[in-house]
Amino acid sequence: MKSKAIFYHAGCGVCVEAEQALGRALDPLRYDVEIVDFNTAPNRVAEAEAAGVQSVPAYVIDGLPFHINFGASMAAVKGEA
Amino acid sequence: MKSKAIFYHAGCGVCVEAEQALGRALDPLRYDVEIVDFNTAPNRVAEAEAAGVQSVPAYVIDGLPFHINFGASMAAVKGEA
Repeated sequence: MKSKAIFYHAGCGVCVEAEQALGRALDPLRYDVEIVDFNTAPNRVAEAEAAGVQSVPAYVIDGLPFHINFGASMAAVKGEA
Repeated sequence: MKSKAIFYHAGCGVCVEAEQALGRALDPLRYDVEIVDFNTAPNRVAEAEAAGVQSVPAYVIDGLPFHINFGASMAAVKGEA
């Protein structure tokens, strides 16, 4: 069975670099990969936070958050910081 | 041409979790993936630092470092902290 992997980013410089290197890099035979850009999908912020995402870019794989470098805090994504 | 991807870790709890989820997760058709555990390959620390690795677990892809969550600092890996 494939694992579910979601790559969340927000278009920041670090995000773009990570997206190019890692966003679509997972093995498609083993992962259903979805790319979520908060700029175009702000309604996905809540689910990312619920999964434990504290900054972007981040992967959530099988429900576990993996933060990659540091692009922007979720507070910044929400316009709070 | 395949990209070169090296996953560095040090056996810490965060590292193991990341290794299981991400260490062998990249598409083998597009990446030559190598897993380096500093416990068994301490001689690889210098090359990782030279690539910009500041903490583990981390991927270095095409020479660029991507830190994943935070397991241990390189100082701790080297026994300095």
